[in-house]
Amino acid sequence: MGLVVQKYGGSSVADAEGIKRVAKRIVEAKKNGNQVVVVVSAMGDTTDELIDLAEQVSPMPAGREFDMLLTAGERISMALLAMAIKNLGHEAQSFTGSQAGVITDSVHNKARIIDVTPGRIRTALDEGNIAIVAGFQGVSQDKKDITTLGRGGSDTTAVALAAALDAEVCEIYTDVDGVFTADPRVVKKAKKIDWISFEDMLELAASGSKVLLHRCVEYARRYNIPIHVRSSFSGLQGTWVSSEPIGDKKVEQAIISGVAHDTSEAKITVVGVPDKPGEAAAIFRTIADAEINIDMVVQNVSAASTGLTDISFTLPKTEGRKAIDALEKNRSGIGFDSLRYDDQIGKISLVGAGMKTNPGVTAAFFEALSDAGVNIELISTSEIRISVVTRADDVAEAVRAVHTAFGLDSDSDEAVVYGGTGR
Amino acid sequence: MGLVVQKYGGSSVADAEGIKRVAKRIVEAKKNGNQVVVVVSAMGDTTDELIDLAEQVSPMPAGREFDMLLTAGERISMALLAMAIKNLGHEAQSFTGSQAGVITDSVHNKARIIDVTPGRIRTALDEGNIAIVAGFQGVSQDKKDITTLGRGGSDTTAVALAAALDAEVCEIYTDVDGVFTADPRVVKKAKKIDWISFEDMLELAASGSKVLLHRCVEYARRYNIPIHVRSSFSGLQGTWVSSEPIGDKKVEQAIISGVAHDTSEAKITVVGVPDKPGEAAAIFRTIADAEINIDMVVQNVSAASTGLTDISFTLPKTEGRKAIDALEKNRSGIGFDSLRYDDQIGKISLVGAGMKTNPGVTAAFFEALSDAGVNIELISTSEIRISVVTRADDVAEAVRAVHTAFGLDSDSDEAVVYGGTGR
Repeated sequence: MGLVVQKYGGSSVADAEGIKRVAKRIVEAKKNGNQVVVVVSAMGDTTDELIDLAEQVSPMPAGREFDMLLTAGERISMALLAMAIKNLGHEAQSFTGSQAGVITDSVHNKARIIDVTPGRIRTALDEGNIAIVAGFQGVSQDKKDITTLGRGGSDTTAVALAAALDAEVCEIYTDVDGVFTADPRVVKKAKKIDWISFEDMLELAASGSKVLLHRCVEYARRYNIPIHVRSSFSGLQGTWVSSEPIGDKKVEQAIISGVAHDTSEAKITVVGVPDKPGEAAAIFRTIADAEINIDMVVQNVSAASTGLTDISFTLPKTEGRKAIDALEKNRSGIGFDSLRYDDQIGKISLVGAGMKTNPGVTAAFFEALSDAGVNIELISTSEIRISVVTRADDVAEAVRAVHTAFGLDSDSDEAVVYGGTGR
Repeated sequence: MGLVVQKYGGSSVADAEGIKRVAKRIVEAKKNGNQVVVVVSAMGDTTDELIDLAEQVSPMPAGREFDMLLTAGERISMALLAMAIKNLGHEAQSFTGSQAGVITDSVHNKARIIDVTPGRIRTALDEGNIAIVAGFQGVSQDKKDITTLGRGGSDTTAVALAAALDAEVCEIYTDVDGVFTADPRVVKKAKKIDWISFEDMLELAASGSKVLLHRCVEYARRYNIPIHVRSSFSGLQGTWVSSEPIGDKKVEQAIISGVAHDTSEAKITVVGVPDKPGEAAAIFRTIADAEINIDMVVQNVSAASTGLTDISFTLPKTEGRKAIDALEKNRSGIGFDSLRYDDQIGKISLVGAGMKTNPGVTAAFFEALSDAGVNIELISTSEIRISVVTRADDVAEAVRAVHTAFGLDSDSDEAVVYGGTGR
């Protein structure tokens, strides 16, 4: 008998019907002889409704009280789910993040899990219960205040619990059939991936794939917890994410796992920077002090005549204003002529462990983009990923061209509607 | 500097506007130099909406999970209220019942408070915060499960916290101006009572007055915590409930405090019971074993020829079916001919400490009913209360007649809309 952790997103439990459907699925896993722990997000639009209420009483709701408010969402869905399971004749108990032993730091609205002490969950399981746990939330170690984990937090809760309980698998149920070779909204012929390594999944997540968030995959890799991403609406096998292929069937590691894209970033170019040591450091110290994460960085070749150069970097659009302000404030300290801000960019990334041993991949990638008439503005690479920045308008065409060029197209249009995965 | 506990019901915080209005009121109390603890119910219809959801997933939701679900309601209102107060420039922190140290027994859906350990509240106050506490909820002492206190639970939370924190007063804010000499929906000329003793208030609550529940008043009397019932919509003084009149003004204890009525009860008559010792005991042991609380009991004079008698008692209509079933099941053990069930009854009660020393009160009460043409079916008295059972149709007329006969009518129609007080 194994222990399975299942996580259901907000779209899977959007209404009473959804909750009853999910309850049946959970009971099946239990009937198959497993101990079952379920992590659940807030129902459908609950979180948005709560945020809306908060904004009506306070223009900038945040911090401790905001977390207290939002965690009401999972409290509702988890209690209803436990009731629905009991109504099917099985024992179930729901637990808040705090009750489940999800201990976090004190950074409200985006806390990090620092420990999981699932004593009550273990007891509930040993007594024959299905344990339902609120995703997305925990309790701070020092002040015992309620915290939330930020976007994608429920997936992280599920993986963290799976690790703490030494689960066989962490099943992430969502409204798509799994991880695809590209975003199916953009590439109709995108294929579902049967198995992908943690490393490739990490690169896809970092490059704009939204099915699993980076933090959750990182956690799973650290504790070597296999993730099975699958649809709560179908009975199909989804995508396994693990260190090695699972099961009898020997799955060959693909050369290319997929093509990811991201249009949520902007580019800042710092123009007329003296080409001398310490300049780049001054710029990126300024950005880091403003607590902004940057992505790609490129320094142009210096024009010999002037001794000046340009430095470009990309960052989330949402941080654009803050970065510009920070740089302007430190203009004299850094020493530059001007700043250029461009939020009409997109990033296309090709991910695959096979790149390491297939030197032709990079060339084929650039040829495909060139054939599609797509101009490249920035390039960045890792051992198993190549990313380029293009005009935002070119992204969809570029993704399709690359997907086809690397033989990833499916024979049929799988055309799945692709949505968010809740929190 | 004093410590004030304020309680706001669901109708006072029904929407964002209500929450902002209440926040201003709380900040005023703080500005007046008080330490302020606020107990808040769920917003307006939240509880009903949650119950509705529960019924959609399970026909008989109850117990642990139902409590987990319902407590989401206060979590939302208390977090929003804390945000609204912070937005006015004051520090506020919200606490669940569990965080506030409200320890209960393990009877889900109607738990009783067995201890209050408000360490975190005290710390929050000492740090200059306004403390917002979820009403209606606690945590069970043995299993550490979330519990709810049942109807009127938020009032009890407020009084219990006031006692544990040694507050000067517990202010119960509601949507009426205070406690009235009769239900203003029935008696237009009902007057607001300025002060009433714990004893009279207990009798009024037991007799159908819904402004304060019996349990809450009992708690306040035990710990001698003055209650001030007042409107959250006006700045008016409401009704003080305490052992002695409060303040400089000497308030004379009224002979009659008020007239209460109750149409939520039914009458069961056990017909043809042998008139011998132990019969009544057998009947009421049967009822007690079914965990049904009864109110009034009357045994008719035995007819000498048959040696049989009838025993009537009243009980909540909601328990009617259960009582009939229990009695029928035990018919041979008890020995009776038949059962009569009547849910078309009403109860009118006259309450006042002055009855003890004014022997004419009972006579005047019956005269008023007689003059109004109201037939009396059962009578029950305590030292400071007389109650009669009549036809339900006669109740309104009877209440008005008694109210007038005892000189309680106001000179003007105060005509306040009278609503529930939330939970």
